[in-house]
Amino acid sequence: MNHAMVRFILGRLLMLEALMMLPSLVVGLVYREPWSLLQSFLFPMLLLLLAGVSISLRTPSNRSIFALEGFVVVSLSWFMLSLFGCIPFLLSGTIPRFVDAFFEASSGFTTTGASVIANVEILPRSILFWRSSTHLVGGMGVLVFALAIMPRIGSDAVHILKAEVPGPIFGKIMPRVHNTARFLYLIYLAFTAVLVLLLLLGGMPLFDSLVHAFGAAGTGGFSIKNASIAYYDSAYIETVLAVGMLLFGINFNLYFLLLFRQAKVALKNEELRWYFGFIAASILLISLIVMPQYDSFPRLLKDVSFTVSSIITTTGFAVTDFNEWPLAAHFILLLLMFCGAMSGSTGGGLKVSRAAIYIKTTLQEVRRAISPNRRIPVRFEQKPLSANLQRSVSYYFMIYMVFFCLCVLIVSFGSPNFTTSFSSVAATLNNIGPGLDMVGPAATYAAHTDVSKITLIVAMIAGRLEIIPVLILFSPRTWRKT
Amino acid sequence: MNHAMVRFILGRLLMLEALMMLPSLVVGLVYREPWSLLQSFLFPMLLLLLAGVSISLRTPSNRSIFALEGFVVVSLSWFMLSLFGCIPFLLSGTIPRFVDAFFEASSGFTTTGASVIANVEILPRSILFWRSSTHLVGGMGVLVFALAIMPRIGSDAVHILKAEVPGPIFGKIMPRVHNTARFLYLIYLAFTAVLVLLLLLGGMPLFDSLVHAFGAAGTGGFSIKNASIAYYDSAYIETVLAVGMLLFGINFNLYFLLLFRQAKVALKNEELRWYFGFIAASILLISLIVMPQYDSFPRLLKDVSFTVSSIITTTGFAVTDFNEWPLAAHFILLLLMFCGAMSGSTGGGLKVSRAAIYIKTTLQEVRRAISPNRRIPVRFEQKPLSANLQRSVSYYFMIYMVFFCLCVLIVSFGSPNFTTSFSSVAATLNNIGPGLDMVGPAATYAAHTDVSKITLIVAMIAGRLEIIPVLILFSPRTWRKT
Repeated sequence: MNHAMVRFILGRLLMLEALMMLPSLVVGLVYREPWSLLQSFLFPMLLLLLAGVSISLRTPSNRSIFALEGFVVVSLSWFMLSLFGCIPFLLSGTIPRFVDAFFEASSGFTTTGASVIANVEILPRSILFWRSSTHLVGGMGVLVFALAIMPRIGSDAVHILKAEVPGPIFGKIMPRVHNTARFLYLIYLAFTAVLVLLLLLGGMPLFDSLVHAFGAAGTGGFSIKNASIAYYDSAYIETVLAVGMLLFGINFNLYFLLLFRQAKVALKNEELRWYFGFIAASILLISLIVMPQYDSFPRLLKDVSFTVSSIITTTGFAVTDFNEWPLAAHFILLLLMFCGAMSGSTGGGLKVSRAAIYIKTTLQEVRRAISPNRRIPVRFEQKPLSANLQRSVSYYFMIYMVFFCLCVLIVSFGSPNFTTSFSSVAATLNNIGPGLDMVGPAATYAAHTDVSKITLIVAMIAGRLEIIPVLILFSPRTWRKT
Repeated sequence: MNHAMVRFILGRLLMLEALMMLPSLVVGLVYREPWSLLQSFLFPMLLLLLAGVSISLRTPSNRSIFALEGFVVVSLSWFMLSLFGCIPFLLSGTIPRFVDAFFEASSGFTTTGASVIANVEILPRSILFWRSSTHLVGGMGVLVFALAIMPRIGSDAVHILKAEVPGPIFGKIMPRVHNTARFLYLIYLAFTAVLVLLLLLGGMPLFDSLVHAFGAAGTGGFSIKNASIAYYDSAYIETVLAVGMLLFGINFNLYFLLLFRQAKVALKNEELRWYFGFIAASILLISLIVMPQYDSFPRLLKDVSFTVSSIITTTGFAVTDFNEWPLAAHFILLLLMFCGAMSGSTGGGLKVSRAAIYIKTTLQEVRRAISPNRRIPVRFEQKPLSANLQRSVSYYFMIYMVFFCLCVLIVSFGSPNFTTSFSSVAATLNNIGPGLDMVGPAATYAAHTDVSKITLIVAMIAGRLEIIPVLILFSPRTWRKT
């Protein structure tokens, strides 16, 4: 592995994190927060700059990197960013314990939205802003961000992009990595700005609009109200956010196609059709199931649609306590959690394309058993699945389940019951946020043991990066010099 | 599809089921049970003979069958046998409702051991014997039994054997199907006889010994005591059964090798090593976890070993209420339930060979990510996995999970909570028996709705036959004449 280059990119990224803290510092200044609070940002910013400069001072002579370096850089940066990103929580005293602060920061960057804070409404504005801005950078990817604004790291930066953008198929939309990253971020930020504007129009204060727009854009789910979106009690705001979340759950490459007047190609996208198919089917089924609990049809439709949108995009915003819904509705939501949003979006989970391929493969295997001599390839996106893609998609499922079981096993040593340990891992590995029982929407992750919390931190980052890059860190072979 | 041949084999099988009921009738006569009870066997026997003769009267001119016919014959026979097999329960009045009786019979044949009967101790001997003898025939397979004792059905009977013997790799141990089936059954029955003898030596009455030996041999788990094996309170009996269950969880082909003095080859078997590895690791881990709850080390070791043996072989006999154990121990047991016993054994679950391949594949994918240009094939049983096997094993996992989720979804409409619906499907699809909460070891499946029960019947048969043969029945293409 090219150690020098990995160190160089990490250094640059740490310097960038100092820059990311700047807006939160400004928020603190605007709201005239005390000097002690401002220090909680100034100190880590200084530390980040020093650490960053010191490890990336010397430009490596050999700038070539391969897939392995891509995985390692991405994986290490997410751990490092969370590690440094938790300092403001610690110094400000909002989260006094290190493991808790680390958990909160990882949850922010990975856009999980799981929290250890019971009452967010008493937190200072600057801290709330920092907490939510991690969603914004984490959503589209911290390294995509780095590639977008920094001078070209090297000609092989595509390996970094590939490792960070989720989904089984990576579509490079522009010939140059730098431009691809820049375009993705521009469209992402433009959408976020539109969302802020729409929320402002609905009467939401500016600060609240920014924070919730960040939460929806990154499909993260951190709110600044204990009751989440239900606090605003506005059908307009709920509709804007429900539609907003769905749009951020779509593959950003499709927006590129739309922009360049290739709407026909975009609408032919098979994953998009499955995505809307899953959403429509879930809304229909859940509505039928929860019908007896509602007396108003519009309210039913609004609650169900918002919840489905919040869950399939793995955001985790809430407008209703779906714990009160019947079991069958819960199970459909659970399936949506594992399914997740589209590849190349800001959402987590297994991704719609994989779920679609799993279903198609099952049907194909039945057909193959009936007519063993007919060669019937699985088709996806209007062409037969390549052997390589088919392999990687089916293997990903095994890796995912093996990793999932391992995490549940470790967490269950410190959990009161199966529902808690199972849903804690499901909600973090799929980057959703709230789980059930001890970690339900009304509770926090604070009650977990430290071992469980560290396991869940690894699960969050592994879930965001699709597991392999994180597993690689544990192999000695990775660290060999070449 | 060759309809005439499918009908012919089914007819022969129905006649065979009449024969299977004979021993239970004899038990009724020996214990001088009333005429009304004996009628509960005489009537279905007559019905089976008539039905069997009428549909298999004409020998088909075209006797050739292929994989498809193999699947259909196996799948249909398991449904038919359960359907007719429930008549004694209905006529005797022991289980008055049809769906309940059908559930009990399917649970018996598929060696699941899930029951709707709250108090088994008041049941007549003949009924108890019939209930347990379904385990004996179901364990090694009803069609393997048919092939073993009936004149050759055709030269293509290997397709039937393949469809019924569980596991991803089918090893035909003898050149002729007829002989293979006969050998498998002989060794199976010999082992059962030895087990009966050993139980008798431990002071268990003859009737009890027979019934429990059938339960262990088929890895079924029906007992004639409400407290299961704990009733006998004998370390000897528990040890005999624990070892017995483990032996019936081993691939029977290995016994063939042992018999023909190829012990070395048998011991080199990789699946066998994984099987014992899983068992040893589970016993060690669970012992460490439950240690604080025990004051006697031998009792601890005995309880843990028996439970691990009972769960990994998917038998379901109980000597201790493991609901009292800590959560981490439950989760390890849950993993063992999904893992199951070896291919070609009488146990259920995903099978040890598949679990081993899933773990090896995960490790290989990590290695492949580190060195993408090195070709590192997954090796299993001392040779690289063929592309075909690798495909079928990884696809099976998807099919399994898709089917699992579908069943949980249907069952959750009538379940009080997630634990009940999840564990009901896990315990039936893996052919284990008792689940958790509403269907826990101390409860029965009687409280489920009829829709749930029918779903679970399909799950039991699908689990026993490894899903594909059952799914095939739902495709119109299957029923086309050729």
